[in-house]
Amino acid sequence: MKLKNGAEYIESLRQSHPLIYYKGKRIEDVTRHPATAPHVRAAAMTYALANDNDYKDLATATSHLTGRTISRFTHVHRNIEDLIKKIKLLRVLGQKTATCFQRCVGHDGINATYSVVYEIDQKHGTDYLQRFKKWLTWIQDENLMVVGAMTDPKGDRSKSAADQLDPDQYVHVVERRGDGMVIRGAKIHMTGAVNSHEILVMPTSAMDERSRDYALVCAIPVNAPGVTLIFGRQANDDRRDNRERIDVGKPSFGAVGGEAVIAFEDVFVPKERVFMDGETDFTGALVYRFAAHHRANYGACKTGLMDVLTGAVSYLTQIQGTAKASHVRDKVTEMIHLCETLYSSSIACSAEGWPTPSGAYMVDTMLANVCKQNVTRFHFEIARLAVDLAGGFIATLPSQYDLESEEIGHLVEKYFSGVKGVPTKHRIKIARLIEAMTGGTALVESMHGAGSPQAQRVMIFREGQLDKKIRLAKALLGIPVKGK
Amino acid sequence: MKLKNGAEYIESLRQSHPLIYYKGKRIEDVTRHPATAPHVRAAAMTYALANDNDYKDLATATSHLTGRTISRFTHVHRNIEDLIKKIKLLRVLGQKTATCFQRCVGHDGINATYSVVYEIDQKHGTDYLQRFKKWLTWIQDENLMVVGAMTDPKGDRSKSAADQLDPDQYVHVVERRGDGMVIRGAKIHMTGAVNSHEILVMPTSAMDERSRDYALVCAIPVNAPGVTLIFGRQANDDRRDNRERIDVGKPSFGAVGGEAVIAFEDVFVPKERVFMDGETDFTGALVYRFAAHHRANYGACKTGLMDVLTGAVSYLTQIQGTAKASHVRDKVTEMIHLCETLYSSSIACSAEGWPTPSGAYMVDTMLANVCKQNVTRFHFEIARLAVDLAGGFIATLPSQYDLESEEIGHLVEKYFSGVKGVPTKHRIKIARLIEAMTGGTALVESMHGAGSPQAQRVMIFREGQLDKKIRLAKALLGIPVKGK
Amino acid sequence: MKLKNGAEYIESLRQSHPLIYYKGKRIEDVTRHPATAPHVRAAAMTYALANDNDYKDLATATSHLTGRTISRFTHVHRNIEDLIKKIKLLRVLGQKTATCFQRCVGHDGINATYSVVYEIDQKHGTDYLQRFKKWLTWIQDENLMVVGAMTDPKGDRSKSAADQLDPDQYVHVVERRGDGMVIRGAKIHMTGAVNSHEILVMPTSAMDERSRDYALVCAIPVNAPGVTLIFGRQANDDRRDNRERIDVGKPSFGAVGGEAVIAFEDVFVPKERVFMDGETDFTGALVYRFAAHHRANYGACKTGLMDVLTGAVSYLTQIQGTAKASHVRDKVTEMIHLCETLYSSSIACSAEGWPTPSGAYMVDTMLANVCKQNVTRFHFEIARLAVDLAGGFIATLPSQYDLESEEIGHLVEKYFSGVKGVPTKHRIKIARLIEAMTGGTALVESMHGAGSPQAQRVMIFREGQLDKKIRLAKALLGIPVKGK
Amino acid sequence: MKLKNGAEYIESLRQSHPLIYYKGKRIEDVTRHPATAPHVRAAAMTYALANDNDYKDLATATSHLTGRTISRFTHVHRNIEDLIKKIKLLRVLGQKTATCFQRCVGHDGINATYSVVYEIDQKHGTDYLQRFKKWLTWIQDENLMVVGAMTDPKGDRSKSAADQLDPDQYVHVVERRGDGMVIRGAKIHMTGAVNSHEILVMPTSAMDERSRDYALVCAIPVNAPGVTLIFGRQANDDRRDNRERIDVGKPSFGAVGGEAVIAFEDVFVPKERVFMDGETDFTGALVYRFAAHHRANYGACKTGLMDVLTGAVSYLTQIQGTAKASHVRDKVTEMIHLCETLYSSSIACSAEGWPTPSGAYMVDTMLANVCKQNVTRFHFEIARLAVDLAGGFIATLPSQYDLESEEIGHLVEKYFSGVKGVPTKHRIKIARLIEAMTGGTALVESMHGAGSPQAQRVMIFREGQLDKKIRLAKALLGIPVKGK
Repeated sequence: MKLKNGAEYIESLRQSHPLIYYKGKRIEDVTRHPATAPHVRAAAMTYALANDNDYKDLATATSHLTGRTISRFTHVHRNIEDLIKKIKLLRVLGQKTATCFQRCVGHDGINATYSVVYEIDQKHGTDYLQRFKKWLTWIQDENLMVVGAMTDPKGDRSKSAADQLDPDQYVHVVERRGDGMVIRGAKIHMTGAVNSHEILVMPTSAMDERSRDYALVCAIPVNAPGVTLIFGRQANDDRRDNRERIDVGKPSFGAVGGEAVIAFEDVFVPKERVFMDGETDFTGALVYRFAAHHRANYGACKTGLMDVLTGAVSYLTQIQGTAKASHVRDKVTEMIHLCETLYSSSIACSAEGWPTPSGAYMVDTMLANVCKQNVTRFHFEIARLAVDLAGGFIATLPSQYDLESEEIGHLVEKYFSGVKGVPTKHRIKIARLIEAMTGGTALVESMHGAGSPQAQRVMIFREGQLDKKIRLAKALLGIPVKGK
Repeated sequence: MKLKNGAEYIESLRQSHPLIYYKGKRIEDVTRHPATAPHVRAAAMTYALANDNDYKDLATATSHLTGRTISRFTHVHRNIEDLIKKIKLLRVLGQKTATCFQRCVGHDGINATYSVVYEIDQKHGTDYLQRFKKWLTWIQDENLMVVGAMTDPKGDRSKSAADQLDPDQYVHVVERRGDGMVIRGAKIHMTGAVNSHEILVMPTSAMDERSRDYALVCAIPVNAPGVTLIFGRQANDDRRDNRERIDVGKPSFGAVGGEAVIAFEDVFVPKERVFMDGETDFTGALVYRFAAHHRANYGACKTGLMDVLTGAVSYLTQIQGTAKASHVRDKVTEMIHLCETLYSSSIACSAEGWPTPSGAYMVDTMLANVCKQNVTRFHFEIARLAVDLAGGFIATLPSQYDLESEEIGHLVEKYFSGVKGVPTKHRIKIARLIEAMTGGTALVESMHGAGSPQAQRVMIFREGQLDKKIRLAKALLGIPVKGK
Repeated sequence: MKLKNGAEYIESLRQSHPLIYYKGKRIEDVTRHPATAPHVRAAAMTYALANDNDYKDLATATSHLTGRTISRFTHVHRNIEDLIKKIKLLRVLGQKTATCFQRCVGHDGINATYSVVYEIDQKHGTDYLQRFKKWLTWIQDENLMVVGAMTDPKGDRSKSAADQLDPDQYVHVVERRGDGMVIRGAKIHMTGAVNSHEILVMPTSAMDERSRDYALVCAIPVNAPGVTLIFGRQANDDRRDNRERIDVGKPSFGAVGGEAVIAFEDVFVPKERVFMDGETDFTGALVYRFAAHHRANYGACKTGLMDVLTGAVSYLTQIQGTAKASHVRDKVTEMIHLCETLYSSSIACSAEGWPTPSGAYMVDTMLANVCKQNVTRFHFEIARLAVDLAGGFIATLPSQYDLESEEIGHLVEKYFSGVKGVPTKHRIKIARLIEAMTGGTALVESMHGAGSPQAQRVMIFREGQLDKKIRLAKALLGIPVKGK
Repeated sequence: MKLKNGAEYIESLRQSHPLIYYKGKRIEDVTRHPATAPHVRAAAMTYALANDNDYKDLATATSHLTGRTISRFTHVHRNIEDLIKKIKLLRVLGQKTATCFQRCVGHDGINATYSVVYEIDQKHGTDYLQRFKKWLTWIQDENLMVVGAMTDPKGDRSKSAADQLDPDQYVHVVERRGDGMVIRGAKIHMTGAVNSHEILVMPTSAMDERSRDYALVCAIPVNAPGVTLIFGRQANDDRRDNRERIDVGKPSFGAVGGEAVIAFEDVFVPKERVFMDGETDFTGALVYRFAAHHRANYGACKTGLMDVLTGAVSYLTQIQGTAKASHVRDKVTEMIHLCETLYSSSIACSAEGWPTPSGAYMVDTMLANVCKQNVTRFHFEIARLAVDLAGGFIATLPSQYDLESEEIGHLVEKYFSGVKGVPTKHRIKIARLIEAMTGGTALVESMHGAGSPQAQRVMIFREGQLDKKIRLAKALLGIPVKGK
């Protein structure tokens, strides 16, 4: 691992100069700009844990390509233990950052691509796996951060890729040359994009025969010519500057992963970085495997976040003198219950993992979908409980400026105090943390990250084995089963 | 009504010069400061409707004190029709502002005080009603906005008012003189305070005998000496300036009512403005009636908001080409269903209204509590559904600056377009509106405004007539009922 | 009212001799057969209350046809007060019987038919209203019980009435003669049919032009030639005999209304009893109005039932020594909360009632649908809470035979005792009541009576005024509204 | 395994002659009496699978005591794989019986006792493990069925064991002799008791020092002198006879496990069958481990049941012609989703299993509690969805006698038909199955089996590590953590 820790990771980003815009202006240094620095710090934690004796075993793995120690985020899962360690790693990272640390997206992209290109090669006689292994070895050795880039803008969603008025609504090949291809389009909601090194482009959905130019997997440096990133707004993003620390809620880390649009305006991709080109018959599998891995993660990282939120709420009720009320304990119990229900599915879909023909391990897809589906419900409910317990003042609290004002600071200090012995500032900090974790962007991310709720329901129905279940019912009742 | 319309109301606020702080600085003109102006405009709508032929019947009433036409927000309910008209008025105002228009708080305070001071006078031989009528006639004739001020900071909530280390954690009398009294303390979460004319101070909870100095009702001008207001932060408040219109979501109106701390530092209150002083035996009734009226409102104004949100989501799904999907229609149905369930309780608790001894009408308190309890649940669920249908881009959308950027505006324009014929800007506006209505402060307000969920549960249990219900069960089973 | 009380009603049933089957055998006397007698007694309560001074005002009305005092269950609603009184009457009856007392179905049929035939006459120049008034006057004066008969078997539900393989899957005219018509088909789930005097046949859904023979409203005596009733099974129906009183749960009353199939095998209907024949354009309105009235009722009668259930559970927790546990109080609070939420919609849809052209009053249809939709959810949840609080023994309790056994009665007596002073038998009675009210038929009835959940959702979406709501959102954002 | 299959198991029960009462009469042969035979058949399935090549690997294990092949239901878990195989076995059995097969209770009792008596011996120098191993080897070799007997009647639950007016409300030692002890009391809700061979008596809760006589673990043959069983009533139990097959729903298997009261009237227990006597310090651990194992099971067996229910509902919608409606597919999806959420926790708590000092493996207790907690909610919701989709006719269906009646059978046949080609009888059978699986006893069992909901919540709160979570929040905010 060339990048050995958070500091080296951050330094590496300073060397890269991707074209990033935010609020109409270019961001020159993502590691220092107040809008992006919190996200850089969260991703840096994935580097830091590899050196932490408490977590090294979770945060690193042994490459099956080289035998060298690598970041787990660049590893291809070889067994169930790998899948479970990943889950535990994500929960720890969630606990330490209380936000999205972004790096699992590329990890899932790597795993989905690895197993699928193996199968493409088997069927079509291509040599994608060899190319991919070469690229992946480099990623592992350099310890680079990869953004898994799947979601296209999609324009009019009642129409498929090939039927859009504007063909660029889905990323596609606009020219093929001997040494590579030229692509155009955009990917949106790209978590961690502005502080990644590489983009792993994947199709956004299963493609039909008419959409060969959209059946595309390739790797592109974030700072490649023609690549433009536009960093999205987040809840209360304007509170972030270099002075105002309390009101942002999480002073060191962002609300979510830091999402960006990545626009590709005729970007050239050399041949050795192309891992799928036109094999529409494998687009469904790729999306499906990526999605399943990614959905499995949400019961782990979000669980880590909710651990922090539960702790914050518990502490606040202590400060406010309400911690022992029976309804308070009951609501905290419910927060834990929902949180651990989510975690169950992450662990279970890993424990029920299975090897693909390539040797890479997949999670149980039903349980992974169930996991994410519950996240889309429970995060709102946990937020609701947290807001209930925190009290209305998280919505009406004066700013840090007021707390520190010479004229009225004494009033804020006095009237937001709690039990004896805890500084008002601590109460306010906790309140701002809860505010940041229960509103706006954070909840939207839990809803739509790794696929919107309906995407999971479609898979749950499809994998529900209704025929088998109908046979079970018939068998119990002595109703003849056809073909049996 | 001296103040005849929104413009006159706004002008009146410019004449008053209350001491308001926000982010550490004084606000000189609430009607023009970007943080407060949206709230002023929402309150102004309560004045405007009185002149709108479509709504005049809802927005005005005939004073039982003077026979003159007055704003309904200064009216004492005389019958069930009054209660129902208020509900309808609130829903319309919610539909027109998509936010809190603040004025019902004072209205509920007026109604609670009117009926309770009548009963105090009956029992204790005081003359509060006569004082109150005089003040109220002036409010009606001038058409002033009153902030109903109930919630104290409370400090350590495991202790009662009299047991706080700092006696100022509850507003109390510090000195009594022949011509009035001096009070100290603060009220927090004061909706509409910065753009009201008068403060109606009420106790925050039932007081015991030891807390006579806390059993206090009085009226104080917002700009009285010793009164300081500190305006609280809201979600995305920093997006509000005089240029950035789209990203705030609701360009004309605020996220919520605009809450402030009101600190009273030894404020003098003349005798004729004191409506309760030490009658602890009536504090419970006052709080209870205020709370019941206020809880009844939430199924009306929030319903109006949710009408807007439902419309916004429906329109967005049309733009995105998903409006006809069965799961989309089902989720919209659910939004409407929950919304109308809330409305049911507002209407029902009014239809079951009853006269107090003073002649002022009360709502059915059980149904009013049920109403608010559901708001604390359904607003989150409706927000969750709206976020689901809107899609992840409401959390990752670039800013208006990017949309208008010469360098990258074309990318935002292109990649956030929807179905043919609808400008990208419309899609973005709708998205920002949904973002503003589903996150942060807006939800906290629905949770805690008019009392936190547990407050309603305590009342629901208390009013549940379990003894009667046990008798019903026993009667069915032939089990003897004692005393019958 | 010829039938003045419950005893006269019961006697009248003994004079009628409808053809009723149950478990393969004919029931000779519905008033004495253990399967049907409990349902007769519940319906008799509707007669009894008319003589009870406490409830007379609710249980009777003044006929607008004759000016005579009649049972409210035969009354055409003339105003909002009528609608609200009906709701209160239903809740009282639910409290007194803890079951379905059946008579509202015919009442709703009468009201729907009255207002719709008025409009048919207006449009088509028919004389249905005159016929209907004559029949109704007789019903009012005799004080007869009418079963509103709407639901057809429907066969293959992917096909409409006219497309069924078997035309009899929907009731239809098979022959028209000068003096009347002959009909064939069946109505299923017919609440109260076996102990009614008259059947009011109505179409089960909106009919298209091809289905003229299915567009049919008429009145038929329950004991008319060609009419056969088959009484359905209910949960634990075999526990009903003439000795075993405790194990049935509700000794005097049934689990639900007592539903039957009514088969019409070429039944002749005289012309004066035909109130619609072929006017397909009014079938939708008829179904819609019947359904709305009926859905409004469910938040009233079921609320009465849940009052009993809440009382039973509360008493049981007292007997078991758990009543003061905080989680017990919280669950009881939730039962009350859900119950009163339902009641809200029944009251609200009545308070928002409106006059049809005929003068008959309709409920607000949106709120009535919302009401029933919530019943389909909340009754299960209330049952779940009741089962939680009651404890597992309601599912494992030995029978009354064991309690009374010489050999082992002492063991049952000993090991099912609770707190000191309450006989074990009381605890067991309460447990059996809760068992009867939380399982099986009772819950299915709340789900599907007055229309299955999806039927309400279709109406809620249709009446949701999405266009208006979209305009509200656009107005707030300054987006131009077409045609405005 | 001496008992090699279901037939031998059944035969063994015929040799035993326990004293069983039901509806006031003695049951002479549990294998033939209609009330108990269905439960015997379900338990027999646990024997049958051991010979089924498809399931042998799940249904058997290798004894760590003897190295011989044994039923998994008599096995002490040695590793995570054992825990997971148990879960899969339970789901299969649930799918094949659609009911409780009872045998896991004794299995969990064996595992809890094994690990705890090891620790007692370590601390107190007793020789319980040696006694227990001897008994267990015999159970394994004979392949006997053991009922794990924990729940005491408890009398007045506001009082502890030692404070009951009647000391027998908890099973206790009434006399100690050199060769053993005499016990008195009862266990209630005893699943599978009437068709087990042995009773493993355990304390019902943690006992304090004053309750030494209640700290008792021992094994007693079901047919021992002084043991009386009273078999409880179940929903629709009277439909069970030897002719009426359809109306019972599940013709071969019972509604639930078949619960009984076991009364011990001065039963003598020889010393070698006593495994705890007075070690109150270990009662908490025993209850806790038993409960955790048992709670883990509920996400497995119930999942199997719900698979059948989902299949039944799906098939019924096909018969009724509604299977393709979008709301039907959505509700089926939800049934699967909830079902797999439950399964997740069963798998996860096993995958996170850990070795006790004895070498026996425990499940993760947090996730096991979470599992059961969800069962208490989801089974009701799944039942609600099933009832919704099935339609109202499951509550109004005529009996099999009517279907087969010469007079009216043709009407039932005609009016309960569905799509072409499926016999009406199949539709009715499916309806009765759904009726049996969604009402009454079945739901109560899911609520209270393995502990009532509040018991899980207490554990979830206790194991929630709030201190750690508070430290996480403080760390993020830079708030000093004491002692760090």
